[in-house]
Amino acid sequence: MDPPSLRDNTADVERLLRCLKRVLGEEEVSVGLHLIRRVPRLLRENQYEVQALVHEKEGRGWHLMDIYPTTEEISLYGLAVDLGTSTIVLRLMDLLRGNEVGEVSFLNPQIGAGSDILARIHHAADPRGLQELQQAVAGKMNQEIGRLCGECKVEVEQVVAASLAGNTTMTHLILGLDPYWICREPYIPVTNAPGLVKAEEAGVFIHREAPVFLFPNVGSYLGGDLIAGILACGLHRGDEVSILVDVGTNAEVVLGNRDWIVACAGAAGPALEGGVADMGMMAGPGVIDRVFRDPGSGQFRLRTIESRPPVGICGSGLIDLVAQLFLAGMIDARGKLVPEKCGERLREMDGVAEFVLVPAPDSGSGQDLCLAQTDLDALVRSKAAMYTILTTVLQMVHLTPKDIRNFYVAGTFGSYIHPPSAVTLGMIPDLPLETYRPLGNTSLAGASRALVSSVARKEAGIIRNRVTYVELNVNQEFMGLFNAARFIPHTDRGLFPTVKAGSGGVPGVME
Amino acid sequence: MDPPSLRDNTADVERLLRCLKRVLGEEEVSVGLHLIRRVPRLLRENQYEVQALVHEKEGRGWHLMDIYPTTEEISLYGLAVDLGTSTIVLRLMDLLRGNEVGEVSFLNPQIGAGSDILARIHHAADPRGLQELQQAVAGKMNQEIGRLCGECKVEVEQVVAASLAGNTTMTHLILGLDPYWICREPYIPVTNAPGLVKAEEAGVFIHREAPVFLFPNVGSYLGGDLIAGILACGLHRGDEVSILVDVGTNAEVVLGNRDWIVACAGAAGPALEGGVADMGMMAGPGVIDRVFRDPGSGQFRLRTIESRPPVGICGSGLIDLVAQLFLAGMIDARGKLVPEKCGERLREMDGVAEFVLVPAPDSGSGQDLCLAQTDLDALVRSKAAMYTILTTVLQMVHLTPKDIRNFYVAGTFGSYIHPPSAVTLGMIPDLPLETYRPLGNTSLAGASRALVSSVARKEAGIIRNRVTYVELNVNQEFMGLFNAARFIPHTDRGLFPTVKAGSGGVPGVME
Repeated sequence: MDPPSLRDNTADVERLLRCLKRVLGEEEVSVGLHLIRRVPRLLRENQYEVQALVHEKEGRGWHLMDIYPTTEEISLYGLAVDLGTSTIVLRLMDLLRGNEVGEVSFLNPQIGAGSDILARIHHAADPRGLQELQQAVAGKMNQEIGRLCGECKVEVEQVVAASLAGNTTMTHLILGLDPYWICREPYIPVTNAPGLVKAEEAGVFIHREAPVFLFPNVGSYLGGDLIAGILACGLHRGDEVSILVDVGTNAEVVLGNRDWIVACAGAAGPALEGGVADMGMMAGPGVIDRVFRDPGSGQFRLRTIESRPPVGICGSGLIDLVAQLFLAGMIDARGKLVPEKCGERLREMDGVAEFVLVPAPDSGSGQDLCLAQTDLDALVRSKAAMYTILTTVLQMVHLTPKDIRNFYVAGTFGSYIHPPSAVTLGMIPDLPLETYRPLGNTSLAGASRALVSSVARKEAGIIRNRVTYVELNVNQEFMGLFNAARFIPHTDRGLFPTVKAGSGGVPGVME
Repeated sequence: MDPPSLRDNTADVERLLRCLKRVLGEEEVSVGLHLIRRVPRLLRENQYEVQALVHEKEGRGWHLMDIYPTTEEISLYGLAVDLGTSTIVLRLMDLLRGNEVGEVSFLNPQIGAGSDILARIHHAADPRGLQELQQAVAGKMNQEIGRLCGECKVEVEQVVAASLAGNTTMTHLILGLDPYWICREPYIPVTNAPGLVKAEEAGVFIHREAPVFLFPNVGSYLGGDLIAGILACGLHRGDEVSILVDVGTNAEVVLGNRDWIVACAGAAGPALEGGVADMGMMAGPGVIDRVFRDPGSGQFRLRTIESRPPVGICGSGLIDLVAQLFLAGMIDARGKLVPEKCGERLREMDGVAEFVLVPAPDSGSGQDLCLAQTDLDALVRSKAAMYTILTTVLQMVHLTPKDIRNFYVAGTFGSYIHPPSAVTLGMIPDLPLETYRPLGNTSLAGASRALVSSVARKEAGIIRNRVTYVELNVNQEFMGLFNAARFIPHTDRGLFPTVKAGSGGVPGVME
């Protein structure tokens, strides 16, 4: 800037804005009172030569966030957040270099009020409960932001932007919005497009002028996390039809291409995440995440996380196990344990048959690790629900599984799942294996893209507007499809030509 | 609004905005998170039939401030504020009816840090001092807003807008902006266009989303109070040339019409406000505000405020007194007391001649009320400065006093001043008396207009851009004019044809 003189006694802020407009064009540039208070000193200390940090506003124009000396090399960071119901992941990114600097994940502290969404909504019905939930998540996030910044040697004030992807309820709770009507007919969120809010307003303490981008929701049951997922996999940009499946308690399915997108969500049951089996648990040290049965010896080989003695099994391990049991003929097409094949591994407990995978002496917990017939039944119901949802969505747009060119599997679970096992069970269609693309945490990937790209943020809005949310109509036709899918792999074996029951055949070799 | 249904499950906020846009056109409507939090309940409690309160934003678009049931009759109020260095005036206005509801004036509590602007700027040099001054004025204003609302039976939350007119330093201090550079070459304010801020940001507690309009400044020495004054008198709309004079310690002079405006300010000295005379005081009970000498009896007739026994004299009374003394020949053209004419009313105190206006027995204070020769000298210097500033500004644009069609006198002092007395002293030009228009508090009048009219707010910006601020160049020519004006009425008697010294003539009859 030209420094002030008696000939040009333009005020400090207007001098700064005049100079900015020369660079940014004639669009309005706003400034907050807090920065205005610091402007005179900052300009004079730096002889009217400064670097300015601006962000694009939602409507049009720019917001001036901060100014820095030109003599300093500035580092700016951003925070991409996957605001999960169970787990929250923070990723710190260098905004100038575009790379990841650090990452941390932790349990969503709202779990104290209940592990599922409905329990949280119930808890928030009381205004104090809502405040509690908002403060719990914001407080924990602030603590973890502090820790992450500390580890990465980044000042919290250098974190100048954030991007949050969460489902509709999580997005409501972080903003202190009452989710009461989300789960009540006709299922109305407070807002589907919170857009940019100030970090301060969301109770997140980073740079005080930092804009926080919240992914828009399509509706009560289709949240910003899935929009972020679509953004990350790029389904909305392809010419061919792709499908994105986020497997969890709720199976979320998105189908489409550059011209159209349909999405639906349905309850698949917690069985797919290993959540119902007695020995089921979330991924952690000693948890079995891969199972392979040697067709020669008939021995089961287990992979555990960190190679510790086995203490339980997670979803991907469970799916492997059941697929292997089926291929070995140890369970039949109805998912029932076959005594003749299971031999001494089969026993009965309280009138329920169970299969002993790891006897107590070999386990890390000192207890038998077993798969009960009831666990198996739940898994079969869940996989049937998953497959029925997939085929129902496909039918709605008059497509069949063969039309799918890319099958993206999202979620932490999705990145561990072994597609051949899931195909063997008939949980997902029998497509060429290269069609399946486990993507890991797509919400976080989408949040990261939105953090560094205004194009990506605009895309999120476009995706939101393009998605047609279809209600799963659980009618007689659906139930018919569901019942047909309650066999392994399916009543119509022609749909799964590569699956050979009782063959002992190996779908993929264990790494 | 159409209530939500399974067919139209638009979220609450988007439903509200969609409806608003139908009324307001396609411009963006923003909403704060605080209102968003209350929206679902408010909509449902009122069956989706509500009244919305919006305000126009600075750039473009609207901001949704609040929603109310349609079943209630809503009252909305606004606050016009004259943020004076000495006195602050609050006027509460009914925004729907457009009328004034109540008014209160009180001393600016910053006076504790010094009565003049420079002392305040000095005090604010320390960040804690700045905060002190900001909090003092905001705190006192909040208290008085509360009291005024209480008296008028208005809820503070019903006050949904405010408009503040103050000089550049006062505007800085209420916003917590450091005024340090205002009084230091090259005289750079932090900002000349604070525009709209949230009430909260200025520390003013009314409706939490209330926009506060701050009049723009032209520069360090020409503040929003004068812009408000111009707006109020309408000088900027006339075809003919008008002049607006705000008489005070600083004489502020604005000259112009619909095509051009020049303004300047110069020190006239506190004498014009009665601030130097021993018996001088601000208007209050018992203060002499009008003086008339009966040419027959030679008796002085005094008008006091509330007709109480006299305790002192204010500016308008002082000007009357000196004009009457001059017309009676009791002071000469140099402003010196003439012993032969003053007779027994003249005495000497510590070597200085003084004129006894009210002897102790007749006064309300039990003390003589006197006008010393030194007071007279100061008054003559001040009136000479005033006249010189006026003529200098006129000369700059090649005009003479005769070209002035409207002579607006602003300020509390300006509304009490008796123009014939001021003409007699040669403080203002000898123009037809109907040219003079005392306007009272033009800052407050301008602030009131800006409060109720978006056109007026835009006009304020236009005025600001049209005003050319001219520095008073105190050079030899100025000093020549000043010296010529140090006579009563002037060395060039031809400039004041209606003034007859020693005539005992009465310029206007006392009401």
